[in-house]
Amino acid sequence: MSYEVEIGRGKRGRRAYSLDDIAVVPSRRTRDPELMSVSWQIDAYQFAMPVISAPMDSVVSPETAVAIGRLGGLGVLDLEGLWTRHEDPEPLLDEISELRGGTRAEVAEATRRLQRAYSAPIDPELVAQRLKQVRDAGVVVAGALSPQRTAQLWKTVVDAGVDLFVIRGTTVSAEHVAAAGAEAPLNLKQFIYELEVPVVVGGAASYTAALHLMRTGAAGVLVGFGGGAAHTTRGALGIHAPMATAIADVAAARRDYLDESGGRYVHVIADGGMGLSGDVVKAVACGADAVMLGAALARATEAPGRGWHWGPEAHHGDLPRGQRVHVGTVGSLEEILLGPGTTPDGTTNLIGALRRAMATTGYSDLKEFQRVEVVVSPYQPT
Amino acid sequence: MSYEVEIGRGKRGRRAYSLDDIAVVPSRRTRDPELMSVSWQIDAYQFAMPVISAPMDSVVSPETAVAIGRLGGLGVLDLEGLWTRHEDPEPLLDEISELRGGTRAEVAEATRRLQRAYSAPIDPELVAQRLKQVRDAGVVVAGALSPQRTAQLWKTVVDAGVDLFVIRGTTVSAEHVAAAGAEAPLNLKQFIYELEVPVVVGGAASYTAALHLMRTGAAGVLVGFGGGAAHTTRGALGIHAPMATAIADVAAARRDYLDESGGRYVHVIADGGMGLSGDVVKAVACGADAVMLGAALARATEAPGRGWHWGPEAHHGDLPRGQRVHVGTVGSLEEILLGPGTTPDGTTNLIGALRRAMATTGYSDLKEFQRVEVVVSPYQPT
Amino acid sequence: MSYEVEIGRGKRGRRAYSLDDIAVVPSRRTRDPELMSVSWQIDAYQFAMPVISAPMDSVVSPETAVAIGRLGGLGVLDLEGLWTRHEDPEPLLDEISELRGGTRAEVAEATRRLQRAYSAPIDPELVAQRLKQVRDAGVVVAGALSPQRTAQLWKTVVDAGVDLFVIRGTTVSAEHVAAAGAEAPLNLKQFIYELEVPVVVGGAASYTAALHLMRTGAAGVLVGFGGGAAHTTRGALGIHAPMATAIADVAAARRDYLDESGGRYVHVIADGGMGLSGDVVKAVACGADAVMLGAALARATEAPGRGWHWGPEAHHGDLPRGQRVHVGTVGSLEEILLGPGTTPDGTTNLIGALRRAMATTGYSDLKEFQRVEVVVSPYQPT
Amino acid sequence: MSYEVEIGRGKRGRRAYSLDDIAVVPSRRTRDPELMSVSWQIDAYQFAMPVISAPMDSVVSPETAVAIGRLGGLGVLDLEGLWTRHEDPEPLLDEISELRGGTRAEVAEATRRLQRAYSAPIDPELVAQRLKQVRDAGVVVAGALSPQRTAQLWKTVVDAGVDLFVIRGTTVSAEHVAAAGAEAPLNLKQFIYELEVPVVVGGAASYTAALHLMRTGAAGVLVGFGGGAAHTTRGALGIHAPMATAIADVAAARRDYLDESGGRYVHVIADGGMGLSGDVVKAVACGADAVMLGAALARATEAPGRGWHWGPEAHHGDLPRGQRVHVGTVGSLEEILLGPGTTPDGTTNLIGALRRAMATTGYSDLKEFQRVEVVVSPYQPT
Repeated sequence: MSYEVEIGRGKRGRRAYSLDDIAVVPSRRTRDPELMSVSWQIDAYQFAMPVISAPMDSVVSPETAVAIGRLGGLGVLDLEGLWTRHEDPEPLLDEISELRGGTRAEVAEATRRLQRAYSAPIDPELVAQRLKQVRDAGVVVAGALSPQRTAQLWKTVVDAGVDLFVIRGTTVSAEHVAAAGAEAPLNLKQFIYELEVPVVVGGAASYTAALHLMRTGAAGVLVGFGGGAAHTTRGALGIHAPMATAIADVAAARRDYLDESGGRYVHVIADGGMGLSGDVVKAVACGADAVMLGAALARATEAPGRGWHWGPEAHHGDLPRGQRVHVGTVGSLEEILLGPGTTPDGTTNLIGALRRAMATTGYSDLKEFQRVEVVVSPYQPT
Repeated sequence: MSYEVEIGRGKRGRRAYSLDDIAVVPSRRTRDPELMSVSWQIDAYQFAMPVISAPMDSVVSPETAVAIGRLGGLGVLDLEGLWTRHEDPEPLLDEISELRGGTRAEVAEATRRLQRAYSAPIDPELVAQRLKQVRDAGVVVAGALSPQRTAQLWKTVVDAGVDLFVIRGTTVSAEHVAAAGAEAPLNLKQFIYELEVPVVVGGAASYTAALHLMRTGAAGVLVGFGGGAAHTTRGALGIHAPMATAIADVAAARRDYLDESGGRYVHVIADGGMGLSGDVVKAVACGADAVMLGAALARATEAPGRGWHWGPEAHHGDLPRGQRVHVGTVGSLEEILLGPGTTPDGTTNLIGALRRAMATTGYSDLKEFQRVEVVVSPYQPT
Repeated sequence: MSYEVEIGRGKRGRRAYSLDDIAVVPSRRTRDPELMSVSWQIDAYQFAMPVISAPMDSVVSPETAVAIGRLGGLGVLDLEGLWTRHEDPEPLLDEISELRGGTRAEVAEATRRLQRAYSAPIDPELVAQRLKQVRDAGVVVAGALSPQRTAQLWKTVVDAGVDLFVIRGTTVSAEHVAAAGAEAPLNLKQFIYELEVPVVVGGAASYTAALHLMRTGAAGVLVGFGGGAAHTTRGALGIHAPMATAIADVAAARRDYLDESGGRYVHVIADGGMGLSGDVVKAVACGADAVMLGAALARATEAPGRGWHWGPEAHHGDLPRGQRVHVGTVGSLEEILLGPGTTPDGTTNLIGALRRAMATTGYSDLKEFQRVEVVVSPYQPT
Repeated sequence: MSYEVEIGRGKRGRRAYSLDDIAVVPSRRTRDPELMSVSWQIDAYQFAMPVISAPMDSVVSPETAVAIGRLGGLGVLDLEGLWTRHEDPEPLLDEISELRGGTRAEVAEATRRLQRAYSAPIDPELVAQRLKQVRDAGVVVAGALSPQRTAQLWKTVVDAGVDLFVIRGTTVSAEHVAAAGAEAPLNLKQFIYELEVPVVVGGAASYTAALHLMRTGAAGVLVGFGGGAAHTTRGALGIHAPMATAIADVAAARRDYLDESGGRYVHVIADGGMGLSGDVVKAVACGADAVMLGAALARATEAPGRGWHWGPEAHHGDLPRGQRVHVGTVGSLEEILLGPGTTPDGTTNLIGALRRAMATTGYSDLKEFQRVEVVVSPYQPT
């Protein structure tokens, strides 16, 4: 409520901060990076690193979901993507990676091609098959649906067996008003209550929105609103949720809900706009328990996007508000997550960087590191 | 009065915000975009969308005025433009679209060509003929004059029959002091009082200026001061009215005048600087009832500017302070206004984006959406 | 004193504003530009416009000093420039205009060539001859010396006959401490007291520095510290005096000194960094009585710099901290000052723009316009 | 504590300033640059200028350490660099200067080559030999170790004879927690107490960190955290210590420790991010007693980097977070430090610029100049 400025006589607004606006500052003590614990646990599942892949076709195939799991993170399958619409999406992925994307006409053409590729129906058989492939590899299985499709597909998903259920939209609210005649919207609270698997849901970008999602019984809340590399929501919708502020707000909701619920700790998962290892560090510094990464993992040699990155917004039927972006390839998933780093630009050895940032500032686990001192100092690229 | 900063010991100034400085943030509830009402009514006229075309030759011909009207918006003819000076302006428009505009010499040459094209006298017959063409198509008829020409031409315009009368200048004040020997300036209050058609007048960029215009009896006030893509007033005149602040100030004047007048609601129409759908969203969020669009519509395949955009400032005789800018072509008027969008950059499906922004933040009509929460977070393009 | 921020625990600093940080906003009334008075008087001399040329070789030759005077401004000769060192500087000016300036090596080479050209001794005969040429043309005669040379050359200058005497350095203080063994520094107060012609002196960039200069008896104070297009003092010296703040501070000193002195009005002349007409408008809005223009006039077809612009800092013997910059040519001195404008970028018709800005905001003379409302809104170039 | 802003409900942060955010402003008096004293003394050692070279292979060879010493500064050898690992590093330096550095692949390749070059073991014989070479030249001898290597190599260094001992890491704390099984970390307090030579230690970037280092008995504290041209810590680690704030904070620690210790003055040495002479001026203005320069000296014709510049972060085994950057060559060490300057961009005659900035603002020695007035005015490059 405080920290509002007057935009004009009839309107006030709060000053909000992006991750680029802030930086972590070193404090008194230093520690050895090896002493740092970067492990993370949600519900019954323990992870060696607080990294979740964004459920996007450019990032996660069944194979990369397994690979991420084996490296200690969590790979989430997009259950509305090419892998559940096409028996063999590889030729399509090849084709998409060869579409040009420079001029406005080329972008329009690529958009149309994506729209076509995603117009194929979702095949429940394939949903089951893709999840089974991950399960068979022995890693934690997670799949994501949009709120719109959850009512229709959740049973297929649960029957196929998932450990974690992700409901992810640009923005998800605990209460949704649907058009008359439209299918009744998902009652999140009831749905989560009845489901036997823990649910991660979002994005939410404000204290209130997050608090309401926490009250639905979710195990984790995704923080964000289309802030990632592949989104253009600020230009197209005028909507923007600067991440540093959003994470800190949702972390405050976590604390207040912890009290309100008598001890239920809902995980705060920053989702979007963390392309470099420094961004992961800052997200945790603002209060995140874990991060959901898109572009950062799309740069892997194994990534199905072959150096390109896109989200569902890029192929929306009548209001595309995301873009297929070229992110290039910098190394294997292992090099990106655990190093060794080969380039000094924050695209490799994300966990090593997180460890070092914690060591340098004297914190030894992620929960503590959420308290690290930060400064506001807008970034001035040279 | 508050929120002033000290520029130096002898001067204070208020912090003002542009649309780029702010963003809408999602709140708790979400709704289906189909449920959103984006309709707008001014005086007796109802529109399916809150969009008015800027009366500029690059945007509005009689044909595009009709097309915009049929799509649910309001097309306003520039009654001092090429269409009322030339029997057939098409060859001129062709020629203008082929003028080069890169170097300073080319801009000067283009400026001279525009000055010539606009030096032809306005033909009252053509004024009547162009308005009739729109009226015959069955859509709402609107024409714009500058304050300087209103005294001379208003009778022609009213006789030809307009539904809405627009008086538009870079800045229009309720009280104008003319040079001795010059024609007596328009008495806006008396003029509007005596006129039988509703008047939209502006630009105004401050609370006080807008309040005075509201007291003249205007049905709507245009908010802006040469903020559009085709203006260079900040560099040339040192004058700038950052739009977010200007709209919010004028919206406050609307509220105060509503009380003062015992219930007269004067519409606030943001005019200038809204090139992307996100800007339209933010203008409404700051308090606008409708938006007047120039560059955004000049990008239509039907636009008479053929991919170029310019305003009257570009051909001012001795102080040109606008520029012919190349905006390109992105789709039909229908695609730009109603979609489907083909590019994710905010240039198409403006109304779809507005609907979605409202749905995402849980507001169901434009008036409500004026209360949506916004944040201040300067845009950092990458 | 207020408006200070804490830079760190051991240091506070005031927030200062450049002209780019601010803009004039239109207020209620508008007026006809023809009604505006832009005339300016200092001591016994009346000018049709508040424009003084910067005494720089790229801007002022005896011929352009006369031309500027005839147009209604004041041309100030640099009495330590090429025109008082060389019988015929035209071949040198030709040569300088052909020096390349892209790479660091080319800049170094050009610096060396300038250093050579300015190492020729100043010839008192030429000083007298150049001033006489201006006097013979019947316009106000003004010449500038640096503080370092004033003791040595002032008698030559006064004997040759000047109407206004300008003492101009990067920074000039009322009190200067010289090295032991060095010539005794100029006692400004005594010098001005004894001189029969009015003195304009500067730069000063703060309230205190300006107040002290005013107390020396100066008729006008130049505000600035190497802020112009041809300076690199921020990078080289770390010194910068953002102009909006500096002008407003010095205008406050003028007001306080007016009271302290029982009615002596010392003119505040903004000097540096006003390349566009909008900058001139903003300088007056911050409190300037007149402006000293360099780059803006160096763009004239008649300018001796032939499209290039440089100051004395560019050829300093061991610490060059200015640069020869290419400003191009946009029109005649008359077009630049009085129009008609041919380009909409603020480089032509400076006085027309000033008139229009005053008219738009409802002020009718320069003194009144110093009170116009301004906003703080950092410029975001696209 | 004050000057904090709310980043979000759950997090506050302090506004911090970089050197680019501030500028020195001229005050009332001016002085002759010749009168300025820029001398600096630490412990028993007197220097004609407050300049210390960064111990980096691109800046310091035994020869350039001697050259810097003869010019009046202090050259610090990197005792873990190529000169103590290779009998003749010149061929390696040649090879490194020829590595390409444009694309990501080229950077990765260069990183690998650097990693190889630095994997050779440190030869204690060479340590002794390099230090002797400097001592034989009769200038002050200084060598730098990282905290990690100090325990292992300090005796070699002291036996070889150094006048000043530098312990330099990205961040050094008075208290370090090491992994179990790892070598016991250096007990800084005991180490410094027992050592007979004065120690300069850092970087520290906060009041508290610096105060603790001062309490170890250090003669000087390096202020910084990888802010230099060759670092990418903000992107890679999310850590950034804006220099203006860091220096002012550490200067406050110096003042408080002076009182606490009953009169021990610990020198504050700004380290990193001062590429131009204006940056050196601003560092002193914020409270620095001296500056440690990397890139600025790597631009010397004598610099071993041959126009390239890199630090130990560039060849870190698994988390490279610095980059080999091309800084070019601008003149001899003498021209860079003492002039004459040939380019006006702040890369040459650093001490001349410092003298002139002091003279212009009326301060006559470095200690006084720490009190000069500064303004906050973010730099807007054109």
